[in-house]
Amino acid sequence: MANTNDSSDPLHAKNKAWSGRFSEPVADFVLRYTASVNFDKRMAKADINGSLAHAAMLEKAGVISEQDLADIRRGMKQISEEIAAGKFEWQLALEDVHLNIEARLTSLIGDAGKRLHTGRSRNDQVATDLRLYLRDEIDGIVAQLNELQKVLVRVAEKESDTVMPGFTHMQVAQPVTFGHHMLAYVEMFERDHERMLDLRHRVNRSPLGAAALAGTTYPIDREYTAELLGFEGVMQNSLDAVSDRDYGVEFLAAASLIMIHISRLSEELVYWMSQRFNFIHLPDRFTTGSSIMPQKKNPDVPETSRGKAARVIGELCAFCVLLKGLPLAYNKDLQEDKEPIFDAIDTVRDTLHAFIEMMPGVEPQRDVLREACHAGYPTATDLADYLVRKGVPFRSAHDIVGQIVRAAVEMKCGLHEMPLEKLQSFSDKIGEDVYDSLTLEGALKARNHTGGTAPAQVLRQVGLWKDLFARREKDPSAGEYSK
Amino acid sequence: MANTNDSSDPLHAKNKAWSGRFSEPVADFVLRYTASVNFDKRMAKADINGSLAHAAMLEKAGVISEQDLADIRRGMKQISEEIAAGKFEWQLALEDVHLNIEARLTSLIGDAGKRLHTGRSRNDQVATDLRLYLRDEIDGIVAQLNELQKVLVRVAEKESDTVMPGFTHMQVAQPVTFGHHMLAYVEMFERDHERMLDLRHRVNRSPLGAAALAGTTYPIDREYTAELLGFEGVMQNSLDAVSDRDYGVEFLAAASLIMIHISRLSEELVYWMSQRFNFIHLPDRFTTGSSIMPQKKNPDVPETSRGKAARVIGELCAFCVLLKGLPLAYNKDLQEDKEPIFDAIDTVRDTLHAFIEMMPGVEPQRDVLREACHAGYPTATDLADYLVRKGVPFRSAHDIVGQIVRAAVEMKCGLHEMPLEKLQSFSDKIGEDVYDSLTLEGALKARNHTGGTAPAQVLRQVGLWKDLFARREKDPSAGEYSK
Amino acid sequence: MANTNDSSDPLHAKNKAWSGRFSEPVADFVLRYTASVNFDKRMAKADINGSLAHAAMLEKAGVISEQDLADIRRGMKQISEEIAAGKFEWQLALEDVHLNIEARLTSLIGDAGKRLHTGRSRNDQVATDLRLYLRDEIDGIVAQLNELQKVLVRVAEKESDTVMPGFTHMQVAQPVTFGHHMLAYVEMFERDHERMLDLRHRVNRSPLGAAALAGTTYPIDREYTAELLGFEGVMQNSLDAVSDRDYGVEFLAAASLIMIHISRLSEELVYWMSQRFNFIHLPDRFTTGSSIMPQKKNPDVPETSRGKAARVIGELCAFCVLLKGLPLAYNKDLQEDKEPIFDAIDTVRDTLHAFIEMMPGVEPQRDVLREACHAGYPTATDLADYLVRKGVPFRSAHDIVGQIVRAAVEMKCGLHEMPLEKLQSFSDKIGEDVYDSLTLEGALKARNHTGGTAPAQVLRQVGLWKDLFARREKDPSAGEYSK
Amino acid sequence: MANTNDSSDPLHAKNKAWSGRFSEPVADFVLRYTASVNFDKRMAKADINGSLAHAAMLEKAGVISEQDLADIRRGMKQISEEIAAGKFEWQLALEDVHLNIEARLTSLIGDAGKRLHTGRSRNDQVATDLRLYLRDEIDGIVAQLNELQKVLVRVAEKESDTVMPGFTHMQVAQPVTFGHHMLAYVEMFERDHERMLDLRHRVNRSPLGAAALAGTTYPIDREYTAELLGFEGVMQNSLDAVSDRDYGVEFLAAASLIMIHISRLSEELVYWMSQRFNFIHLPDRFTTGSSIMPQKKNPDVPETSRGKAARVIGELCAFCVLLKGLPLAYNKDLQEDKEPIFDAIDTVRDTLHAFIEMMPGVEPQRDVLREACHAGYPTATDLADYLVRKGVPFRSAHDIVGQIVRAAVEMKCGLHEMPLEKLQSFSDKIGEDVYDSLTLEGALKARNHTGGTAPAQVLRQVGLWKDLFARREKDPSAGEYSK
Repeated sequence: MANTNDSSDPLHAKNKAWSGRFSEPVADFVLRYTASVNFDKRMAKADINGSLAHAAMLEKAGVISEQDLADIRRGMKQISEEIAAGKFEWQLALEDVHLNIEARLTSLIGDAGKRLHTGRSRNDQVATDLRLYLRDEIDGIVAQLNELQKVLVRVAEKESDTVMPGFTHMQVAQPVTFGHHMLAYVEMFERDHERMLDLRHRVNRSPLGAAALAGTTYPIDREYTAELLGFEGVMQNSLDAVSDRDYGVEFLAAASLIMIHISRLSEELVYWMSQRFNFIHLPDRFTTGSSIMPQKKNPDVPETSRGKAARVIGELCAFCVLLKGLPLAYNKDLQEDKEPIFDAIDTVRDTLHAFIEMMPGVEPQRDVLREACHAGYPTATDLADYLVRKGVPFRSAHDIVGQIVRAAVEMKCGLHEMPLEKLQSFSDKIGEDVYDSLTLEGALKARNHTGGTAPAQVLRQVGLWKDLFARREKDPSAGEYSK
Repeated sequence: MANTNDSSDPLHAKNKAWSGRFSEPVADFVLRYTASVNFDKRMAKADINGSLAHAAMLEKAGVISEQDLADIRRGMKQISEEIAAGKFEWQLALEDVHLNIEARLTSLIGDAGKRLHTGRSRNDQVATDLRLYLRDEIDGIVAQLNELQKVLVRVAEKESDTVMPGFTHMQVAQPVTFGHHMLAYVEMFERDHERMLDLRHRVNRSPLGAAALAGTTYPIDREYTAELLGFEGVMQNSLDAVSDRDYGVEFLAAASLIMIHISRLSEELVYWMSQRFNFIHLPDRFTTGSSIMPQKKNPDVPETSRGKAARVIGELCAFCVLLKGLPLAYNKDLQEDKEPIFDAIDTVRDTLHAFIEMMPGVEPQRDVLREACHAGYPTATDLADYLVRKGVPFRSAHDIVGQIVRAAVEMKCGLHEMPLEKLQSFSDKIGEDVYDSLTLEGALKARNHTGGTAPAQVLRQVGLWKDLFARREKDPSAGEYSK
Repeated sequence: MANTNDSSDPLHAKNKAWSGRFSEPVADFVLRYTASVNFDKRMAKADINGSLAHAAMLEKAGVISEQDLADIRRGMKQISEEIAAGKFEWQLALEDVHLNIEARLTSLIGDAGKRLHTGRSRNDQVATDLRLYLRDEIDGIVAQLNELQKVLVRVAEKESDTVMPGFTHMQVAQPVTFGHHMLAYVEMFERDHERMLDLRHRVNRSPLGAAALAGTTYPIDREYTAELLGFEGVMQNSLDAVSDRDYGVEFLAAASLIMIHISRLSEELVYWMSQRFNFIHLPDRFTTGSSIMPQKKNPDVPETSRGKAARVIGELCAFCVLLKGLPLAYNKDLQEDKEPIFDAIDTVRDTLHAFIEMMPGVEPQRDVLREACHAGYPTATDLADYLVRKGVPFRSAHDIVGQIVRAAVEMKCGLHEMPLEKLQSFSDKIGEDVYDSLTLEGALKARNHTGGTAPAQVLRQVGLWKDLFARREKDPSAGEYSK
Repeated sequence: MANTNDSSDPLHAKNKAWSGRFSEPVADFVLRYTASVNFDKRMAKADINGSLAHAAMLEKAGVISEQDLADIRRGMKQISEEIAAGKFEWQLALEDVHLNIEARLTSLIGDAGKRLHTGRSRNDQVATDLRLYLRDEIDGIVAQLNELQKVLVRVAEKESDTVMPGFTHMQVAQPVTFGHHMLAYVEMFERDHERMLDLRHRVNRSPLGAAALAGTTYPIDREYTAELLGFEGVMQNSLDAVSDRDYGVEFLAAASLIMIHISRLSEELVYWMSQRFNFIHLPDRFTTGSSIMPQKKNPDVPETSRGKAARVIGELCAFCVLLKGLPLAYNKDLQEDKEPIFDAIDTVRDTLHAFIEMMPGVEPQRDVLREACHAGYPTATDLADYLVRKGVPFRSAHDIVGQIVRAAVEMKCGLHEMPLEKLQSFSDKIGEDVYDSLTLEGALKARNHTGGTAPAQVLRQVGLWKDLFARREKDPSAGEYSK
């Protein structure tokens, strides 16, 4: 267990030459250009856990001694503490998180540290680390999605019958409720939740033991390390195990969709806060001001998150470009896999956090929302449906109502304000009862089927979501559409 | 059942005005710019099936009569036949597949046709059609992936012990077998298979009945239409149902990964066919010539497919851009959802077809592959492992072998050609038995654990794949990692 | 001049084998998968022009006879007529536009046709064709950009003093004029104009004569063909000449920016048409209706164009992906260069056409625009500037006005409606003259410097644009910033 | 000049509230989520220069006093020194580089600092800063491109007649020289040079004075600040001035092309270094080793740069997504403009640096390159050309040579090794002189026209490049195609 940091230790001699194979040291600019420790050190915990599992397996297989394993555990414990305390000295010359930790281990425990890398390679090591790290972050994102859903369901419950104009093509279409609108986003985040759980299965498979590309000559037990690390399965082909980064594309696509959903909500929040809409208020603490215009309160959070959606989409794109056309097995290009994944994780998590904080503060302006329905004839469809119930084919009813709306525009009145006589001049099927179909409340209540905007349906959905949240306390993988 | 193609029928009066609401007809350039019938007519079958289910539900709910339903079925039967026979006259003036079919239906069966659109909107109609269409294409892609896997497993079995250099960084690394290399791609296509099945669940949910955005005032039964159309579930929020295009991103991401895998294989095929590699031959029928250089045989198929990967990645990117920042519920931007999906379907299916045809024709040049291992010292790792078994810590062994390789370079010989004396000058732990570790066969056989390249492992994997293919005959959703 | 379509003609024997080198014909699926004639036939005119220049040069260099050249000209004339008349029979079996035309030429004029391909290759031929084709389309786009600018300047002149709220963060910021707002887009399209002219220089260089990749053994005169075809220069390296597709990225980036500008305008048009904004009206002929909601008039053109921006961005992305990592000189991947360029051309040209037609129809609702300024305190900055003129440092003035605005919110009044006493309670520097700074007209007029929104400045800019348009009649490359 | 850091200073009271307008401070998470100082502080120099020009103009216009200007200059000098010395304390609570510097200025010089922001806004300030910053970096990139070209021209001169196989479709096509191949990249980097200079004009225009969006009420002189800052022109519309980020797309597209060119070269270097090609050696100092395989020397630099191309393409994509659909004038989304630009600058500059260092170290293996020509029949085109000179039409000659090549494959000999008799059995036009056309040197020399691979042409090009480099010493904008 003597410290053997002599010149024969390649990790410490890298300023001389990479290994005995090399006649000169790596040029400085190469080191700087190709090093990754600045960003991959955030995988230190995963790297240590992966090494501990590997060491335990080596000991079980008789490749290293019990004492070696004890030394490795002891060294890793100290390294973990040094990192936690911010005292670990990361060296660019040691390229990456793996060599930094291994070199420190060897300096702490000597030969046992030099035995740790037996039967593995950085190729399977980095693949393992990234999967472990990403798996944890996925779990964090899944929890945040659930939290955001809860926040939105709470708003939906409170605003289950708050009438507002529903838009298509940004034109007033039909009345909906604010609660119904919020629940649309809950559905989107539920699909995000599903996708994260789906792809987690593909992240959570063990490449460890694939070594450089072909497996190893040691009697390793890949199923054992997989079990120790909580992997669901063992990757069945060593070439694939070191070269697979599919999950990067999958994760970034799922992350892009989260950000796209957020961007859609943000677009709405930004417009709803505009003086022309004035649909919602946002407390001052969620807005910022202008350096020149003293009256301004700007919706910086939704704007920023809308902008950040672009960032994650760009990362998805970059990741696809990275993988396209890469031959087997490992190529250095793959070092570029980490930064887009890390940045997308940070972006998604910070954004979800911001929306979990901010959304409860959104104050729908109920009077404005109701008043906004009066422009745009949102009950025109209800009038057409009324005519259908009186026996007019839908397409003909549609046309008749079109003419009535045109008349209302000229008369500058709403449909509910048009005299019966006038209405009847377009169709003799119209009777006194027509006005029931022309009120906002009537229109809302009438859409009382699965997925409809009737307040009763909104509350029914709120109830279903609450049930689901309760079930998820026990089983985090429970979902809206799961059996 | 009289034909009522009178001027009050808006579908036939569009050259006058969209509906009674409009004072002038749509400008020609607007029609051309915004029409979609040129590309969405491929969804005709899905559109008709969706309409038939909707009509059956309307009849069950008492909204239309038994006679109406019979008329609609009769009309749709005729339309289906006209389309199949290439006799259906698609009109740009009728914008899209939906209005084209509805207009023809009304001209065939009169008022019943005008009743068909009761309780639905083009917004939920197009969402339904695209899901039905895509679902079928996913099933086709899944079947093709399975076929390509079978083809590759057959090659792998035949070449289970064909030794070749495994590369990392395009440098000779360790020996692997050609069969092992092929199985790496089988793993990739298996993940593609999984992803397609995962996302199929999210495609296969029914938006029908969401109407324009808020549901409808008719007593519709969304669960019934969902069941008739084979959907697994009913979308629970009408706003979300008409605005959700998440599955486009999901599908294009999964399609991109298929194409990325193909591009990786293509890159290898192109280089393997280059005279410098000469690792494989491809029959003349899979190559094309040059207009100027008479000697050329070019690997056009893998090159083209590598290029086409770029196309699908671009479509994924475009789809994300399309959705970002879109407010609820429906916006015309979404019409741009179809072409990227359609083109990606065509590209993926044509490409898979090409590889299913071509891959059985690949002829590995066994002598060349073996000879290629002699450059690059592929058993250097085995020598290091040998030293470890003799008690040298791995990192030290690594360094010693580095020096031996450097000497071999200078001596212009392979490691197995180096005299024992010379080897021993680097480490006294080396004995006569070292040469067992330095042969290619020895190196292959020694990697005999899950996922390793040992021929025995390759054959074991081949057996597992064959079992899976057999299981899939009964259960198409069976997968490598499924329970 | 006898027709020699015998079996030795490879173009006609391709159903047997590509050339004497091949032992079997190309498989059908390979032909379908790799053929391009379906989309590259739109370059027929460029292909014929390129061939005619090449033939003229060959004759000048003594490689072909005067009679050959005459025959080629006669044959090409007939082919041009056949294509124009829609009578040319494009054959998939002949792969692309080049071989289709050459085969037809040979069938028309015999051996002279077989001599045309002397000293060139499809590699330099296709590179030449695409450049000639794109050059013409760039000129068309440049003309359309100029047209759209004219349309917008006309609107700007008419609305030079139409006050409206200027927004930042979609919050009312300061008053601007509608004319000023329109001129912002004129600036954007001017940069598009510049970029198209910049990149045209790089498109307009001749690759012809690079042959397959290395040049040719014939005594060709590349400068002569370049001159005949109107190229500005000759590409100086044959490998680069056949592999360069940089201009595809450049063109698609410039096309993306045009579409991004259109998308920004579209976003504004869509919101301005929304009932909540009601800033503009659009004549019915530019809108479309709903299949279910009879009252709807939807801004389909701006929505569609906003969606189509995504398409072109995706094509830019795809093109970059295509080129990345391609070794020299020519690879079949490059066949995928044409469809994105063609589609982007069509998209940009159709979209510019739509906006040239539609923009004159936009009717700003002057009363609404003015009234909209009353929310949001757009003259708050003017009040701060007033205080600065009275000696208060800007940062302090900013803070004081912030407090005044907060009071105005509570009092539910505009700044100009606040009593002097009240104003003075925040700062004793405020006098009676403050109200001059608080009117909309005062605020507009005060911003009377280069680029400011003062109506006088807007009209000055309108004048400058008109001058430029006049100058461009003579010199199409004249620009705002050119000397 | 007393320090007035009292509570009325909004910059110092932000922990209380943004301004008098706000009733509560910004929430912590909002601050963290929307702050940019972590990355925009690298624009500090540009920010200070912009402020100094603005202050000089304010003084000239009589808005601030001579003393104020002197104070501002003094304060800024100290701040510059603090930043250079790493002693400046950047505060997240002050959001961005602008407010950090302004707050420090005010704390140093009192009221004069509070007057600096008169007549401008952060909107035009950040637009100015980014343009100034980017302009300098463009100049740096242009210089590096020139340097890399020089390095490559030096290699080209040395290897002007080093024969190697030219490839199309990765199949041996025709012989070229290594020098000719290098010059192809010099052409690519020349276009990059042109593009950078083209877009620099559009970067180098002044938005300063556009203020928030509409200009300002102060009598500012925008032409004067533009002149002081070295801008070529003044942006003529204030709304456009604060919202324009076109140059981000332009720069990232040009940067992507640089990286694409590098990626093409990298792909070639990686394969050329592979043992199968063995076309070049790279000194050890430019390679790295493997953690497991002691024999490995990996081409990490070209692999990493190939991967980094993906990164910049992703940033281009992200930037387009960011801008699409943004309404005027300024939105917070635009804060996401900086990181992609900064990262692309760093990536391009580091990569160019790496290649400037590495390329002189590339050692072409002349014997291997020559020997590699013997596979693949690279003189087949020359044989066809020979037949054409003997009167055979090209298409027929092409077919005859195809048959000869097929025979050579069967005879396992090169074309130059085939007996005359055998050759003549395919065409009686073949004479003894045919062998002159079948040597590599003959083939090279014969391609002696502009752009051809003949060594004489390569040297001619080398001379032209050297002339250009000399001219650029005086005029950095001189280019290959410029007049």
